[in-house]
Amino acid sequence: MPRLLVINPNSNTTVTANIDRALAPWRVTGVTIDCMTNDAGPDTISSDEDAQRAGRDVCAIAAKARADAILVACFSDPGVDMLRGQTARPVFGIQECAILTALARAPRYGIIALSERAVPRHRARIEKLGLTERFAGELGLSGYSALAVGQSDAAYAETRTAADRLRGLGAGAVVLGCAGFGPRRAALEADLGMPVIDPVLAGAAIAVGALLG
Amino acid sequence: MPRLLVINPNSNTTVTANIDRALAPWRVTGVTIDCMTNDAGPDTISSDEDAQRAGRDVCAIAAKARADAILVACFSDPGVDMLRGQTARPVFGIQECAILTALARAPRYGIIALSERAVPRHRARIEKLGLTERFAGELGLSGYSALAVGQSDAAYAETRTAADRLRGLGAGAVVLGCAGFGPRRAALEADLGMPVIDPVLAGAAIAVGALLG
Repeated sequence: MPRLLVINPNSNTTVTANIDRALAPWRVTGVTIDCMTNDAGPDTISSDEDAQRAGRDVCAIAAKARADAILVACFSDPGVDMLRGQTARPVFGIQECAILTALARAPRYGIIALSERAVPRHRARIEKLGLTERFAGELGLSGYSALAVGQSDAAYAETRTAADRLRGLGAGAVVLGCAGFGPRRAALEADLGMPVIDPVLAGAAIAVGALLG
Repeated sequence: MPRLLVINPNSNTTVTANIDRALAPWRVTGVTIDCMTNDAGPDTISSDEDAQRAGRDVCAIAAKARADAILVACFSDPGVDMLRGQTARPVFGIQECAILTALARAPRYGIIALSERAVPRHRARIEKLGLTERFAGELGLSGYSALAVGQSDAAYAETRTAADRLRGLGAGAVVLGCAGFGPRRAALEADLGMPVIDPVLAGAAIAVGALLG
């Protein structure tokens, strides 16, 4: 059976457990999905330095892993490009997969980040990916961790406000800019009446698709 | 259980049967996948007129169908944009999904069409989708039907030659530009040693992902 390794680049094991649980529907395909925590990483990835350090950790974890494909489950796609230079196995990043998925749902997409600080980092990646043409914009919340954003009601209220602003900017689909948003995706989609993309699930769909052929 | 309708816009029932068989691994997710033939369509879609006519048929079929999402399984994405204006359900086109999937696999993608005649039509769609920046090029075979391209050894040899030329143009992933290529995808990927994207499977992954949440 093909094996997909999902790496959580932060050290928060509850975030990893949430990711693991959300991926259950994909396991029935026969693809084995292992979720790993970067024990050496920060509790949440909030700066460019965090992302760079986590990227090196991701490469080290992947080098030792038995896996046919790798999904990096942090929205900054830390280590994704470096890892692609080190392995012939397919490597996926959740930012990349989430944006590609949003493009199949609406003419223009918007992104919501944990904080404004993440926006330039995400924007740089969008430019590198050549996916700016249908990008409506990105807004940051007031600053949450990857864990808190899936639990806090205040974060949910801010997320909803941000989504409405992105709709005003022309977004027809909203991308959640952190692996930790997962527990709130369905409620947000129902509240907004527009597609809301969880990046981990978007990554799983494309990665499982690659492994199924 | 959510229900995905896959419409084959041509009238060839063997093509539909091949699509249906290829989608089996996605049925274990619990998503019901129905494949329908456009009985009113041409045997293969080879001209702009064929695509326009098939697009109207696709909309008529979808209007009557009980489905939570629709995947249009012809590489010209006939009817996809029109249908999006007529329904709130997610509508996916296999060209769009295949290109988005290829972008998660390599810096640049190339496409192989059934004939050179299809290339301008596909190119117009790529431009509409804003996905030209990482497009290495598209090459047409000498002219096969959607059925023949999955069966003919001569078509396979031409496809392989075209893929090598696309690699020379910088493509790191090859997109098969017809729903009928499916039976040959795995062999081609093994022969080439580079990712080869079947558009129907790429569409299924993204559509099933949307239905799983």
